Amino acid sequence: MTEKKGNIFSGMRPTGRLHLGHYSVLENWRKLQDEYNCYYGIVDWHALTTAFEDTTKIKDNIREMALDWLSVGLDPEKSAIFVQSSVKEHSELYLQLSMITPVSWLERVPTYKEQINQFSKAGKDISTHGFMGYPVLMAADILIYQATVVPVGEDQLPHLEFCREIARRFNHMFQTDILPEPQALLGEIKLLPGIDNRKMSKSYNNEIVLGASQADIKNKVNQMVTDPARVKKDDPGHPDICAVYTYHKFYNKAEVPQIEADCRDGCIGCVACKNRLVAKLDEFMSPIREKREFFAAKPGLVDEVLAEGSKKAHIKAAETMNLIREAIHI
Amino acid sequence: MTEKKGNIFSGMRPTGRLHLGHYSVLENWRKLQDEYNCYYGIVDWHALTTAFEDTTKIKDNIREMALDWLSVGLDPEKSAIFVQSSVKEHSELYLQLSMITPVSWLERVPTYKEQINQFSKAGKDISTHGFMGYPVLMAADILIYQATVVPVGEDQLPHLEFCREIARRFNHMFQTDILPEPQALLGEIKLLPGIDNRKMSKSYNNEIVLGASQADIKNKVNQMVTDPARVKKDDPGHPDICAVYTYHKFYNKAEVPQIEADCRDGCIGCVACKNRLVAKLDEFMSPIREKREFFAAKPGLVDEVLAEGSKKAHIKAAETMNLIREAIHI
Repeated sequence: MTEKKGNIFSGMRPTGRLHLGHYSVLENWRKLQDEYNCYYGIVDWHALTTAFEDTTKIKDNIREMALDWLSVGLDPEKSAIFVQSSVKEHSELYLQLSMITPVSWLERVPTYKEQINQFSKAGKDISTHGFMGYPVLMAADILIYQATVVPVGEDQLPHLEFCREIARRFNHMFQTDILPEPQALLGEIKLLPGIDNRKMSKSYNNEIVLGASQADIKNKVNQMVTDPARVKKDDPGHPDICAVYTYHKFYNKAEVPQIEADCRDGCIGCVACKNRLVAKLDEFMSPIREKREFFAAKPGLVDEVLAEGSKKAHIKAAETMNLIREAIHI
Repeated sequence: MTEKKGNIFSGMRPTGRLHLGHYSVLENWRKLQDEYNCYYGIVDWHALTTAFEDTTKIKDNIREMALDWLSVGLDPEKSAIFVQSSVKEHSELYLQLSMITPVSWLERVPTYKEQINQFSKAGKDISTHGFMGYPVLMAADILIYQATVVPVGEDQLPHLEFCREIARRFNHMFQTDILPEPQALLGEIKLLPGIDNRKMSKSYNNEIVLGASQADIKNKVNQMVTDPARVKKDDPGHPDICAVYTYHKFYNKAEVPQIEADCRDGCIGCVACKNRLVAKLDEFMSPIREKREFFAAKPGLVDEVLAEGSKKAHIKAAETMNLIREAIHI
């Protein structure tokens, strides 16, 4: 992992199987592997910030996530693919940064009170010291790899700004420059909606999982909401409000102009249109599915990948931690 | 470290050289070594909670503290004598417990706002996430050794109660019993005042350090405040208000009745009385001083003691951490 443009860290909480809505982010991660030293972490400790009382599924979720990552082409030869809790330095740096982070900074993080209120409405109190500190843990995750770049969505920009502030404070306080201020790498955003046109999410049951079988795909596409005003096949359709059309724009770009015209003219029926989409989605999904099945059949290999990833991550994390200890004189 | 009554953890922040005022605590620790598996930690991470901007002296302070501990008979053959930051499991458990600790519990710790205000008056803002979490770190320090007993002073009882609450919450939440609720072991309190009769403290410059030379002792005893009403040697004295008399009660018990009578009758002068105290204090200090000098001359040996202690502590801490990870399913 040398002679690259710098280090990248990014991570995901192991909340369950990933779906097509996540693909765009992972595609971006995959591309970055050739340019950067990438550290991709399944951040299980973060899962504890909001789900500390039900942790029974974390291990399964970690495995599913590892399979998802591998299936879309994250490459253990190029990147460190690992589980956060297996690299103890994350917790050590969390503790150190915790000591220099003003409580007032944490209370001012935009999502802090928002999320507490949101969970509170659902009858759950997440107002713990760890939840308050999750931007600190996130900063530790990034800074422990001296990451210069973090691929994030716009919603994550405040957390990254927080991370930069902590890095700046640390460097200033201990008269050092060991913690680079990581810059955001905003990937091209391609927000694929769920099959009901809402945000794709497991909780809405409107998702198509990565590696879905052809039958699954067919089943999901058949449920897609088209133009409710279109009753008969030759009624003119309105592609703009049709989920199937949106999906064609993602997975069947070449045929989009034809489909749009045919739909508006009432020359293609919804069933035919859906079938074409199923074929295209299946084409797209096939290599992912194959790769997923390959790894799913070899649990030992996945363990090995994660162990190797931890080792790689640990080497870099231990190196940074030494610099940090030196700077703090501890 | 087996077949004992249980495990003990106790620790001290490396704030500087210890003095006679600390002796009573250390004496208690020394005695406990034969009955319990003792883990005695120099808690350098705790030093960061209130002294995070000036950390340059921590390493020297750690060394001095190790010398002090060894000089009074803490025995590396019997106990684990180690530096907190060298046993990473403390930070890992801090992170885990941080996730289940309500912010409201921390805000209700009696010393929390008190200390913030106190530091604030001195122009220093210690209101950090780490300072807020220091009862969590303290709980982690204790629970990582599954300590059943903690030797503490009365001022520490609220923190120990907090530790029990966290243990209870953890056990309840994860349906386990791996974290025992540690009980306080209140040692016999023998509060030796400083040479000016105030609390002994480096900041008052009224202390006699452990291992002080005879000249140091003489110098300090000479500064001791006696009875200001006594001008001539044969004026009757008032031992109750005399620091020298208080010290005789600690270090020269056998002669106390005689000294008290002679002082009240004006039969012993303050200079003679002080000289007798110097002799007794020196007698008491000699073995401590010798041991301290022995270890001070062998810095490699002290390093070895701490490394061995870390190893011992790490074995137990890793064992507990495995149980904890199993309980959390992480």
